[in-house]
Amino acid sequence: MGSQRSRRGPNCVRLVSVTIPHNQLPPVCILGLGLIGGSLMRDLAGHGEQVFGYTRSRSATRAAQKDGFDVSSDLVQTLTRAAESDALLVVAVPMDAVSGVFDAIAEHAGHCGITDVVSVKKPVYDLVRAHGFQARYVGGHPMAGTENSGWGASHEGLFHRAAWAVTYDFAYELDAAGEAVPESWSRLFTNVCALAALTGAEAVPVSVARHDEAVARVSHLPHVIAEALAIVGDHGGTLAQSLAAGSFKGATRVAGTDPSLVRNMCETNADALVPVLDEYIALLSSARDGLSGENPSMQELAEAGNRSYVRIGARSGARRESVSPVKISSRPVMRVHPGGPGWVAQLKQIEALGGRVEVF
Amino acid sequence: MGSQRSRRGPNCVRLVSVTIPHNQLPPVCILGLGLIGGSLMRDLAGHGEQVFGYTRSRSATRAAQKDGFDVSSDLVQTLTRAAESDALLVVAVPMDAVSGVFDAIAEHAGHCGITDVVSVKKPVYDLVRAHGFQARYVGGHPMAGTENSGWGASHEGLFHRAAWAVTYDFAYELDAAGEAVPESWSRLFTNVCALAALTGAEAVPVSVARHDEAVARVSHLPHVIAEALAIVGDHGGTLAQSLAAGSFKGATRVAGTDPSLVRNMCETNADALVPVLDEYIALLSSARDGLSGENPSMQELAEAGNRSYVRIGARSGARRESVSPVKISSRPVMRVHPGGPGWVAQLKQIEALGGRVEVF
Repeated sequence: MGSQRSRRGPNCVRLVSVTIPHNQLPPVCILGLGLIGGSLMRDLAGHGEQVFGYTRSRSATRAAQKDGFDVSSDLVQTLTRAAESDALLVVAVPMDAVSGVFDAIAEHAGHCGITDVVSVKKPVYDLVRAHGFQARYVGGHPMAGTENSGWGASHEGLFHRAAWAVTYDFAYELDAAGEAVPESWSRLFTNVCALAALTGAEAVPVSVARHDEAVARVSHLPHVIAEALAIVGDHGGTLAQSLAAGSFKGATRVAGTDPSLVRNMCETNADALVPVLDEYIALLSSARDGLSGENPSMQELAEAGNRSYVRIGARSGARRESVSPVKISSRPVMRVHPGGPGWVAQLKQIEALGGRVEVF
Repeated sequence: MGSQRSRRGPNCVRLVSVTIPHNQLPPVCILGLGLIGGSLMRDLAGHGEQVFGYTRSRSATRAAQKDGFDVSSDLVQTLTRAAESDALLVVAVPMDAVSGVFDAIAEHAGHCGITDVVSVKKPVYDLVRAHGFQARYVGGHPMAGTENSGWGASHEGLFHRAAWAVTYDFAYELDAAGEAVPESWSRLFTNVCALAALTGAEAVPVSVARHDEAVARVSHLPHVIAEALAIVGDHGGTLAQSLAAGSFKGATRVAGTDPSLVRNMCETNADALVPVLDEYIALLSSARDGLSGENPSMQELAEAGNRSYVRIGARSGARRESVSPVKISSRPVMRVHPGGPGWVAQLKQIEALGGRVEVF
């Protein structure tokens, strides 16, 4: 399902050229058409895929229909249609609406495969278990977004080059127990990876727990930091803001996000976020103590922070723009055939590297 | 010394057109030719001003000479020449080298006016007092920079549209005591503002103490935050970095700064930075407590943070790009004639607004 050419140049940069499959997906039914669901609908339609969707907002329904999309504000009708066409369901509502949507799926689309794009995975997987959906669910989370939300903010290309986390706990647990993964689940995994690839994103396999711990570090903590920094900057009044330059603006940008979305992310991932916040506060408190002594010193934090920055940059060095016209990804790639021998072990291996899979 | 046209459009956007004076500055002697001193030299030379300088680095001296600049690695000779031509001295060395440069100025350029571009102002002003330089010193701090340093990183246009803090404690104290400000000091203040304007920066008058408190909030705290976030992200390993997107990259960018420069800024401004760090840690700790309860909540921080973000944006709304070809500044402007009646009171007024002065 794709052709790949790989060679190492003088700087060991890997060149990869991939042909994305265009006619393999079942019809896709997107439930929730905000920034993420709406942008996904635009990408799929733009690639000629069959896609239809539901949003509870009548104004978003009208706007999407006016843009030429196949959208309804009737959930039962949409799910009935999905069941008839054996569609892949993409749950793209905020976390606090997932439970109700799952109830409706259980009632009206009892056999369709399910994925989602919610930014935390354990609370979703708890609901998956509660609904007995494990064998027909593969979790997803595209690591892309802007400060804006709603259908009006959606656009083609939002996911280009982004990581798209794809969870595989069901297969992991069966594999650990020495049981076979059902062929229907492997096919669903393939479809979710193909859906991500179609948008230009890179499918990164990850367990629910490791996903939530990682995004607590690199997404939810930066949101908490931005909110608190905006407040401290605001307390400095107009003079402080007049003197603010790039470092302040860069670190506060995501405080522009709708606070209800920030709450939804951080509160539903509190189990993973609290220990990360403790780690962060401990680093700041230690720096504070070093600065408040007779001879103020921030040596430890400044040097360790810069070392971490350099290490992170080295890991993603290949991601920098190259003179080559070939697009380069910094993520190591593994070609996996879902259902093939040892494929779950392959996923574990690539997860440990933060790499991406190409399914075939 | 400038013409100004101001009107209010339909959206109350202020349009200002300024003619910058080109032949008013004395010769300028820059001591230290890193990113800031080097970029200032390029801007001044580019505008046809007389500028020469000193760097202790022989390789930087050769590189600057090769670029056609009038540069020496002999400090005594440079200061002797400055004294002969009654040059304006710009001290552009790191904080820990200021004391030595001030000693040399006292010995070899005993009457030249002095300004500086160091990122903290109280430690510099303590040295100014210790050397008895108050009547010939006006502090400066251009709020611009990159993650890179040294003559090789310097370039024209670095200060364009940036705030250039200009301190005026000497005048403030005399004015408060009912004493007149010497005409020579007013002229020096005029020259420093004109120097900033020539680079395209906007001169923002500020007291030493308020400067250091404001930059602790909007510059030094973001550096501390970036260092600690880089460490926490690094602890997440390659998986976390693979999932990192814009919010992480934006908030860690300045961790790329040379750690010795970060230490110099934060350690020499520890008196102002420690209380700001305490304020910041208290906000995070409170959010942490809200998230660790039975029903995790981050309502208070998310809503207050977003309100602050919106308020900051509203204050600098006019700064956004406009369809008008006329450059727009978000900072309120006051035209001031240094030495004129009530001019120190005018500076206090514009300082409270974080505004900028145009001297005439």
